[in-house]
Amino acid sequence: MVAPLRVGIAGLGTVGAEVVRLIEQQGRVLTERTGRSVQVVAVTARSKKKRAVDLSGIKWAKDPLALAADPEVDCFVELMGGAGDPALSAIDTALKAGKSVVTANKALIAKHGLKLAKAAEKHGGALNFEAAVGAAIPVIKTLREGLAGTGISRVYGILNGTCNYILTRMEQEGLSFDECLKDAQRLGYAEADPSFDIHGHDTAQKLAILASLAFGTQVAEKSIYVEGISSIAPEDLKAAAELGYRVKLLGVAMRTAKGIEQRVHPTMVPKSSSIAQVMGVTNAVTIDGEGIPPITLVGPGAGGAATASAVVADIADVARGIRAAPFGRPVDKLQATEKAPMERHEGGYYIRLMARDHAGTAATIATRLAEQKISIESIVQRHPNGSEPAKTTGKSAPVPVILITYATHEDAVHRALQAVQRDKVISGKPQVIRIEKN
Amino acid sequence: MVAPLRVGIAGLGTVGAEVVRLIEQQGRVLTERTGRSVQVVAVTARSKKKRAVDLSGIKWAKDPLALAADPEVDCFVELMGGAGDPALSAIDTALKAGKSVVTANKALIAKHGLKLAKAAEKHGGALNFEAAVGAAIPVIKTLREGLAGTGISRVYGILNGTCNYILTRMEQEGLSFDECLKDAQRLGYAEADPSFDIHGHDTAQKLAILASLAFGTQVAEKSIYVEGISSIAPEDLKAAAELGYRVKLLGVAMRTAKGIEQRVHPTMVPKSSSIAQVMGVTNAVTIDGEGIPPITLVGPGAGGAATASAVVADIADVARGIRAAPFGRPVDKLQATEKAPMERHEGGYYIRLMARDHAGTAATIATRLAEQKISIESIVQRHPNGSEPAKTTGKSAPVPVILITYATHEDAVHRALQAVQRDKVISGKPQVIRIEKN
Repeated sequence: MVAPLRVGIAGLGTVGAEVVRLIEQQGRVLTERTGRSVQVVAVTARSKKKRAVDLSGIKWAKDPLALAADPEVDCFVELMGGAGDPALSAIDTALKAGKSVVTANKALIAKHGLKLAKAAEKHGGALNFEAAVGAAIPVIKTLREGLAGTGISRVYGILNGTCNYILTRMEQEGLSFDECLKDAQRLGYAEADPSFDIHGHDTAQKLAILASLAFGTQVAEKSIYVEGISSIAPEDLKAAAELGYRVKLLGVAMRTAKGIEQRVHPTMVPKSSSIAQVMGVTNAVTIDGEGIPPITLVGPGAGGAATASAVVADIADVARGIRAAPFGRPVDKLQATEKAPMERHEGGYYIRLMARDHAGTAATIATRLAEQKISIESIVQRHPNGSEPAKTTGKSAPVPVILITYATHEDAVHRALQAVQRDKVISGKPQVIRIEKN
Repeated sequence: MVAPLRVGIAGLGTVGAEVVRLIEQQGRVLTERTGRSVQVVAVTARSKKKRAVDLSGIKWAKDPLALAADPEVDCFVELMGGAGDPALSAIDTALKAGKSVVTANKALIAKHGLKLAKAAEKHGGALNFEAAVGAAIPVIKTLREGLAGTGISRVYGILNGTCNYILTRMEQEGLSFDECLKDAQRLGYAEADPSFDIHGHDTAQKLAILASLAFGTQVAEKSIYVEGISSIAPEDLKAAAELGYRVKLLGVAMRTAKGIEQRVHPTMVPKSSSIAQVMGVTNAVTIDGEGIPPITLVGPGAGGAATASAVVADIADVARGIRAAPFGRPVDKLQATEKAPMERHEGGYYIRLMARDHAGTAATIATRLAEQKISIESIVQRHPNGSEPAKTTGKSAPVPVILITYATHEDAVHRALQAVQRDKVISGKPQVIRIEKN
């Protein structure tokens, strides 16, 4: 019999306590599956308060660094969170001592992943972070191992449950962004300060990790174009539905002729695509492998039990002796990336304008788009309550005009819309949403 | 630098040739990802005909057994197919020589998987078969490693593209089973002899493999209740749609109080479930882990490139030194199973009866169900062309009555329907489809 894997856990919140419970409950199966016993031998947390999980017989380390350095711990599990210390130095300490590390800390991996992967490489330990993206959805393992022999052309996904919950409610109930955000906060799906989620930064950190695994890029949040969902209106979701689309906040990383493009923004996806079916707080990732139809993984992207499931699977991999490169390749093979120049982005666009309703407006808009060589797939102009346009006075309320374009360049769209604004045939700022085809 | 992994491939059909091409094309990435070079050093196939892939510099072995025994081969890749020899003895030979084996051969793994896993265990090689279920969908890896620490309560999926293609066409176009089967054959989605697919046996073999990985059961096709899709009529799909369901051929393995129940049959699934969205030849598997929302993996379940993608990922795992137990646990820990006693199956049921349309029929049916303590969730009776029922003569054509029951036992349903048939209030045989809730 191989010696047991001795696990030390820093952080005993919902996830940490559930990891302790799962390892205990699944003990026999874990031993069968990995060929060795997995034992939690030491823990630490900010407070020694009473917890729902039995910690008798488990050593209490005085702090995370002491736990990370403990020679009786083989595998250090970091579940404290926070993008810096003490999590960072504790992980660094554990790796430099040759231990394997498991963490659910997306922000830390996004910011310091390369440095930590380098330390893991040098000292021979594993650095596993399946729970950092999509919780129990095995997307890290799929990209790191499951598609190791397949060139990947694009990976994209719904990586933030808060945003998907808000967009789902807005679409299904016609509510405003603000109303849905408040509900999400009330139900615990959104933080008191929701900006990190709704402005797309959480999605960007996760995307940086996925892109690295898929394309061999250095994890770098700053290379990602980021746009959140607060500008999305119920009208956009309604118009999208009528045109056969849904709006999702996607993180997209794709191979282009100019390099790897990484971006986070509200996106129109065809209603028939797997990703469009994903509602509420559920997460999903679609991977386009070269020459094969898309593979989509759907599941819970957050929650104590789902996160703990991924953490224990990572611990099981350590027990089994699996040592894959943290980002799929040696750190010195990972390529630097530049921020996606969105003005050169190619794709279809949804454009919603509020047209001042007099004769010639549609013609003016069509002309400005044609000048930029933008072809229109569909155009819908609606008169509220079925009223006729005011043909002569031009005094009626603005009416929405919805356009879907064929693939074009983003700067062409901007130039056309600037011209339309100069023509003074529209009110307010045009709404523009990129379309992602499956 | 570690020595290269020397690969021998038996079988150079679509998949085999694509594997050779992928290993060549992805060579640099494979080396980065696995830490060693992966080289195809020997191949064999039935004929030496010219192929699209370059085999220069690769040794041609005289037969699969010679290739399997070749001391210059570290990893034997079996892509010949067939549930017996030569594939079986070749794999056995390779494993007994301590080599690792990769195969896409579902039938062989379903029939001889335990014996081969035992040989792999004894001699220290890997036995990988990701491509055998769901081709490029990483479902084997997910069950074997990705959810190693999570108790699984149910795994179910659309595992046969032919059947899902037929059911999709029937639903979307209102066509009959026979028409859709002929189209599927014309388009190459169904074999000339389609019975293995449409009667559910292909699904059953795949399910036996998934159940083993999820629940630690011995792979045993004979423990599976199997029912195909040939009895499904367009009326059933139409009624299902109206009641908020779709009909899919599912393989389902679940933990029950009486043991692991394994079954393959047409199934009504709620339209809102991830699995219901899966159309055409696409496959999907949903895994219910204890305490966490379902995880669904969707993607191509067949095709040369998709299958080759999984085969090369399996080879990469061998190169990386990953040696997980083939069925997730040591063979002697796998439990024997018994065939699911379907009469004790519990669930909701869809029942379509052709009622002889005279007064009292509905009452008779309702009474017979009530006698068996079956509660009805909904009942729909339709008069074709909006005609009124013939109240007195009883001579009009039979009209369909559709019932959805709440959860009950299958034998209760059978007893109730036998009573209704004895009452002579219906024509023909009742259609019964089990409902699977998500």
